Amino acid sequence: MDGAVIPVAEARIGVTDWGVTHSDTVYDVVPVRDGAFFRLADYIARFRDSMDSGRFDIGMDGRDIAAALTAMVARSGLRDAYCAMVAMRGVPQLPGSRDPRDCKNHFYAWAVPYVHVIRPETLAQGAKLWVGKGMRRIPADSVNPRAKNYHWGDFTAGLFEAKEAGFETVVLLDHAGNLTEGPGFNLFALIGGKVVTPDTGVLHGVTRRTVLDICAEIGLDCETRALPLDQLWTADEVFLSSSGGGVLPIVQVDDRIFANGAPGPVAARLSRLYWDWTARAQYRTEIAYPDG
Amino acid sequence: MDGAVIPVAEARIGVTDWGVTHSDTVYDVVPVRDGAFFRLADYIARFRDSMDSGRFDIGMDGRDIAAALTAMVARSGLRDAYCAMVAMRGVPQLPGSRDPRDCKNHFYAWAVPYVHVIRPETLAQGAKLWVGKGMRRIPADSVNPRAKNYHWGDFTAGLFEAKEAGFETVVLLDHAGNLTEGPGFNLFALIGGKVVTPDTGVLHGVTRRTVLDICAEIGLDCETRALPLDQLWTADEVFLSSSGGGVLPIVQVDDRIFANGAPGPVAARLSRLYWDWTARAQYRTEIAYPDG
Repeated sequence: MDGAVIPVAEARIGVTDWGVTHSDTVYDVVPVRDGAFFRLADYIARFRDSMDSGRFDIGMDGRDIAAALTAMVARSGLRDAYCAMVAMRGVPQLPGSRDPRDCKNHFYAWAVPYVHVIRPETLAQGAKLWVGKGMRRIPADSVNPRAKNYHWGDFTAGLFEAKEAGFETVVLLDHAGNLTEGPGFNLFALIGGKVVTPDTGVLHGVTRRTVLDICAEIGLDCETRALPLDQLWTADEVFLSSSGGGVLPIVQVDDRIFANGAPGPVAARLSRLYWDWTARAQYRTEIAYPDG
Repeated sequence: MDGAVIPVAEARIGVTDWGVTHSDTVYDVVPVRDGAFFRLADYIARFRDSMDSGRFDIGMDGRDIAAALTAMVARSGLRDAYCAMVAMRGVPQLPGSRDPRDCKNHFYAWAVPYVHVIRPETLAQGAKLWVGKGMRRIPADSVNPRAKNYHWGDFTAGLFEAKEAGFETVVLLDHAGNLTEGPGFNLFALIGGKVVTPDTGVLHGVTRRTVLDICAEIGLDCETRALPLDQLWTADEVFLSSSGGGVLPIVQVDDRIFANGAPGPVAARLSRLYWDWTARAQYRTEIAYPDG
């Protein structure tokens, strides 16, 4: 915050910041695995794309952002972390202005011990996914889903539904009845031997990209296209991708059981390969911790 | 904040609060006019409806909220103020939980000198309204617009368009091509001698209600219904309603001039009557300031 590294519990922002009062903010999250950032350049590139889309200027280039994140995580001592970078609109510098161009944008970052979208022990037992009934995903011509943002009202409503029904998390449909994404993850299905994931109306997650890259490497066909809910019921496997856990096998969607109620072989393989990839030198940005 | 009255510049919230990271929050804003809240009970009732809709429990009833707001504004000394009350989801009390039901919700409020959505001097010269081109209003089946919320990404995109084009503010269309609302206001048109305002896909503003109440008292017919953009071009007058300025006459929408480029007679009359109504004892909750 403001160039200083402080305990996350003390990291606070002003209640009149448009980042709060208008959710006028974009962010990104890069995982830290075993003392290194994974695909740091890709996460920062997307963060910068999100800022461009939302017209944020924080006065830092990619190198500045990488240096700030590295200094923070090194200081935290965390070897496995969830590291968020945030651009906020700020407040107008002209009193009484309602013009976003008058706001002084600002940057901050925070890191906490690694976050799992679904707990590993739950995944091992078989995680259940709810298809949101009440709310549809905010459409791309209302809020750009590819600029990573905090507009989660639709997800929160869906999470309440899912939790009440005893499910771990939720995926939302778009207004045409196609599957989109969930709070913090992309969705994949294995249909007719092909890996299918929605392409429009969703964030293009870096973990999603890693899954597609892994599939290309191992020769598994992928399709990025619209995925109607009807087609999901024909899938052999369903899984999620997230910076918060990698590849997450799903054994049940609504009342339908997949892969006999256990993580499917393709999802399990991709999950193992994802963790292998996080160890590849080409994707790692090592962090020099003060205690070595 | 946390039961204490502090300078607004020091009022800050944690960066990991779901109110920030998921925009998981509802709020309301009550105007203070000449030392009294206007329609305080109505604003608090709506705030409580918003909390019910979003399943927030701040452990305070309407009386508690009124007492907190009154203590804060009295202490501030502000006689004309914009007074915000906010419910935030907080953070999960169970480590690693992604369940909104595990969060400890909390309340805070803040007050600043009275805010005008459009500056009075601009209104006098003739305010110009832009119809958003790039983005449509977030639909009601994605985020409930009647639970007052901070999901303003669509408005912010529209504001950038409007400001670049030299317009004061923006109104957005819904996905069916009907007019909805703008950042901080409802829209009205005078069509064939009737006052028309959209009814669905919008916040039911308290100032909107006051306009409808005033119209009923003075015998001006009102229609709350869908308002297609095509019909707006047939209007004799266009105006906005907002707690931040009351009734705001508009003289131009896109390239179309209304009422010969001056505030129309009906809008001007409603604007005067709105300020008169803020002086009516029945709507005023007087604030006992420490300096009398």
